[in-house]
Amino acid sequence: MRILFIGDIVGRPGRYLLRDFLPAIKDEYNIDITIANGENAAHGNGLTKKIVDELYSYGIDILTSGNHIWDKKEVLDFIDQEERLIRPANYPDGVPGKGYTSYKLNDNVVFVVNIMGRVFMSPLDCPFKTIDKIIDECKDISNYIIIDFHGEATSEKIAFGYYVDGRVTAVLGTHTHVQTADYKILPGGTAYITDSGMTGPYDSVIGSDKSAIINKFITGMPSKFDVADGNAQLNAVIIETDNCGKAVSIATLNLTASNLEKKYGVDKDEEL
Amino acid sequence: MRILFIGDIVGRPGRYLLRDFLPAIKDEYNIDITIANGENAAHGNGLTKKIVDELYSYGIDILTSGNHIWDKKEVLDFIDQEERLIRPANYPDGVPGKGYTSYKLNDNVVFVVNIMGRVFMSPLDCPFKTIDKIIDECKDISNYIIIDFHGEATSEKIAFGYYVDGRVTAVLGTHTHVQTADYKILPGGTAYITDSGMTGPYDSVIGSDKSAIINKFITGMPSKFDVADGNAQLNAVIIETDNCGKAVSIATLNLTASNLEKKYGVDKDEEL
Amino acid sequence: MRILFIGDIVGRPGRYLLRDFLPAIKDEYNIDITIANGENAAHGNGLTKKIVDELYSYGIDILTSGNHIWDKKEVLDFIDQEERLIRPANYPDGVPGKGYTSYKLNDNVVFVVNIMGRVFMSPLDCPFKTIDKIIDECKDISNYIIIDFHGEATSEKIAFGYYVDGRVTAVLGTHTHVQTADYKILPGGTAYITDSGMTGPYDSVIGSDKSAIINKFITGMPSKFDVADGNAQLNAVIIETDNCGKAVSIATLNLTASNLEKKYGVDKDEEL
Amino acid sequence: MRILFIGDIVGRPGRYLLRDFLPAIKDEYNIDITIANGENAAHGNGLTKKIVDELYSYGIDILTSGNHIWDKKEVLDFIDQEERLIRPANYPDGVPGKGYTSYKLNDNVVFVVNIMGRVFMSPLDCPFKTIDKIIDECKDISNYIIIDFHGEATSEKIAFGYYVDGRVTAVLGTHTHVQTADYKILPGGTAYITDSGMTGPYDSVIGSDKSAIINKFITGMPSKFDVADGNAQLNAVIIETDNCGKAVSIATLNLTASNLEKKYGVDKDEEL
Ligand SMILES: [Fe+2]
Ligand SMILES: [Fe+2]
Ligand SMILES: [Fe+2]
Ligand SMILES: [Fe+2]
Ligand SMILES: [Fe+2]
Ligand SMILES: [Fe+2]
Ligand SMILES: [Fe+2]
Ligand SMILES: [Fe+2]
Repeated sequence: MRILFIGDIVGRPGRYLLRDFLPAIKDEYNIDITIANGENAAHGNGLTKKIVDELYSYGIDILTSGNHIWDKKEVLDFIDQEERLIRPANYPDGVPGKGYTSYKLNDNVVFVVNIMGRVFMSPLDCPFKTIDKIIDECKDISNYIIIDFHGEATSEKIAFGYYVDGRVTAVLGTHTHVQTADYKILPGGTAYITDSGMTGPYDSVIGSDKSAIINKFITGMPSKFDVADGNAQLNAVIIETDNCGKAVSIATLNLTASNLEKKYGVDKDEEL
Repeated sequence: MRILFIGDIVGRPGRYLLRDFLPAIKDEYNIDITIANGENAAHGNGLTKKIVDELYSYGIDILTSGNHIWDKKEVLDFIDQEERLIRPANYPDGVPGKGYTSYKLNDNVVFVVNIMGRVFMSPLDCPFKTIDKIIDECKDISNYIIIDFHGEATSEKIAFGYYVDGRVTAVLGTHTHVQTADYKILPGGTAYITDSGMTGPYDSVIGSDKSAIINKFITGMPSKFDVADGNAQLNAVIIETDNCGKAVSIATLNLTASNLEKKYGVDKDEEL
Repeated sequence: MRILFIGDIVGRPGRYLLRDFLPAIKDEYNIDITIANGENAAHGNGLTKKIVDELYSYGIDILTSGNHIWDKKEVLDFIDQEERLIRPANYPDGVPGKGYTSYKLNDNVVFVVNIMGRVFMSPLDCPFKTIDKIIDECKDISNYIIIDFHGEATSEKIAFGYYVDGRVTAVLGTHTHVQTADYKILPGGTAYITDSGMTGPYDSVIGSDKSAIINKFITGMPSKFDVADGNAQLNAVIIETDNCGKAVSIATLNLTASNLEKKYGVDKDEEL
Repeated sequence: MRILFIGDIVGRPGRYLLRDFLPAIKDEYNIDITIANGENAAHGNGLTKKIVDELYSYGIDILTSGNHIWDKKEVLDFIDQEERLIRPANYPDGVPGKGYTSYKLNDNVVFVVNIMGRVFMSPLDCPFKTIDKIIDECKDISNYIIIDFHGEATSEKIAFGYYVDGRVTAVLGTHTHVQTADYKILPGGTAYITDSGMTGPYDSVIGSDKSAIINKFITGMPSKFDVADGNAQLNAVIIETDNCGKAVSIATLNLTASNLEKKYGVDKDEEL
């Protein structure tokens, strides 16, 4: 099985990049299932129903998320009906939405799980205990378990990767919006990367307009951040598995719109 | 000019890797100046005089540091005498040590600066205002200014990079111990990477023994962390400049001891 | 001189309590100058010009603030014109507003300073170095210096109190919205309290509606907090000084609207 | 029933104050059960077996704790054998020690529970869900339930108080080392105070030597903190209950050693 995992989609630049190039990428790499973190897809903050459907229409099968999932209030109206959209599983019992979902792929079931870190983030249930419970619920049905670990601290993400190594197919970090270079197959057969990166404006501070963010750091005053414009970038991870749900390879994609155009020659009559 | 910048050296595994392979690496890449972050060189925590000298003897020209600089108390005995060891420049006036230093290279002077972030870290002076002052002090002497930005949050590091773009040669992140894949030349000619990574134990959680860290995350109890053993890794960045101090290329090194042995065939009678 | 300092005014309940009882309180205690922290006066978040004027009309002479000062964007339109409204002085140079102001009282000048802590708060300039500079600027004009220290951590507030002891008239903490019982005159003659408390809804979680806050803690989801209604409370501090600007006594007021009505018998035809 | 609850005991000054005055205090107020937070009793950091026994010998019945419970490693050797020493109940399952204990008082059983906050503190299980479970386990045996809530943020502590109001006898805050003035009986009959304060050195920064702490804030460098010496203070809370475990009154004690000597005339041949 070949899995494409796309790092946090930020705003329209991220969405339109997928509209323009996702089909070609899936084709080139023979992708069987496409997962993307969508927590910043709606102008940098959260998700609307319209944007969820837009993303599905571009070829995304499952949407994961993170701390920004609640940014658009309307998410509460539809999250319980969306089988293909998940939020971190270690939100406490009773919170709307679900922490993992399953996806049928021919004769296989693929579980996709979303977990959030706690270091430098808000209090939540323990990610380690939560994943133990989820693996217990899934493992008799399928060994294909893909985890989006949405977290800030490298130590927590790496520790989590080793903790589940051999029990899941992949642990793919998100949230920092910067792709890391430490992708590898852990000793037990789990594909791992600390952060998958961001799919959004290239010339930006984690997706936002540079000058507003620089101004915030210099003045200490709050600031409204707009999604930056200009060239976009794609950050993603491709995992290949064996027939038992173990990862056999992991590779990264880190390409700008300009690179992608050169490669795939997509015709460009869209306005960005 | 060709600059080698080595990510946080962790403990003996990191030091011995440099002992064994640094000369070959410098040779292969025609390195003119070698800078390394040494804040974790002494068993993961700080620096002793003995280890500082050991690192110089392996071919490091300048040592930068970060929040761990004060871990070994004896650093206070020698930091003011060490011309080639710096600590973050945005510690307040009056703190021992210095925040930047200069290095003579034939007819050029290279300034090496250490700055620390504040997001998810302890209070310090403003990194942005501090660098403005330092650039002012340096720019009439030399345009070769290399900054080690030691920080946690990707947003702060990237914002800082854009802030000084065109005014310095390079902004090379450290502290998270995970190399990022976003190395690039910014529009103004400054080489940038969010994190240069770690030179230390490969099979570890940011350098430390995995099981102790996992246990800490699961129990919430404090834990003593030992430097992990086994295979080591080198994480570094190579920058090439023009004659005006602008960066013309940036590349990363991300190699394990096993890779390095295959490549350089160093004979191995040392005990790690 | 007798100084009344009122802890963070929260919303309409806080404002109307002052409308109804401030004149009687000032009268009873022979107050010469009335200072209040207004950062939460506009529905819990920030200040509008209308509310600033409303608070002056109730008998407040000087308004201090804190991290919520920027919550209402319109504050940027008037803060530079308001001589009697200050924001934390350790915002960096160039930020709108001012960090201290002076108030003429017969033949005396009283300086009122606002400083913000950094522990568990956002990065700012050093509160300790900032106050040194301000004291230098003020001390030749007047020894009457009242500081509102807006901070979270008890250690930082107490350390600050001792740091300026003998150099200022009073250090009066704000921000936690809970009055502390540690008011005292420090050895050098500075009146000190870790937190002056809150003037707003009594039956609330630091001014906000209880159930929304409890829900946020249980679910981990963001929540909109309304100012609670019902009975209000007054939290304030009264300092008496000698003729040299040293404090000779400090006392606290901690009274509900019901207590105040019993005491002052104010007629109540207002709607809260 | 009359309950004495003593705020964080810091070092020898705190312990010796209790040695000298606790019997007289218990006598004066007809105390039935004495509970104290001991997390800082051993030179400011943690507890040893010797000090636990010393504190029992002074008349303390139950010891609670907090984040400092693990500071002295030897606590792991005895915590599971100590029926009268508890640590925060929301440490995850499997952590040594227990989160609540029971105490026989004539025909009554009194449950004492320790809970820790999560805001500005390390990740732990949810305090709200944890207390629900504990109340469930206790309520058929006794309605006398006293909670030490060890936390930083006033909002979390107050929210917790309202959350359990009517279900427990008292929620008594600890950890900030500064007694608050907001003690009250909540509408449902639960006694509440945000922080009970500290029993230790009076002229100090939350128990530690002032100059070392001030120096840390000014330089940003780590510092070793010694317990301050000089005059000590007692901070405590006294609760009176009805026969059903509801609180009928709450009062605070906030006295220095000098005050206590004047009041109780204890003879002083001890060395502090
Ligand atoms: Fe994101
Ligand atoms: Fe996120
Ligand atoms: Fe490091
Ligand atoms: Fe570091
Ligand atoms: Fe406030
Ligand atoms: Fe505030
Ligand atoms: Fe404590
Ligand atoms: Fe504590």
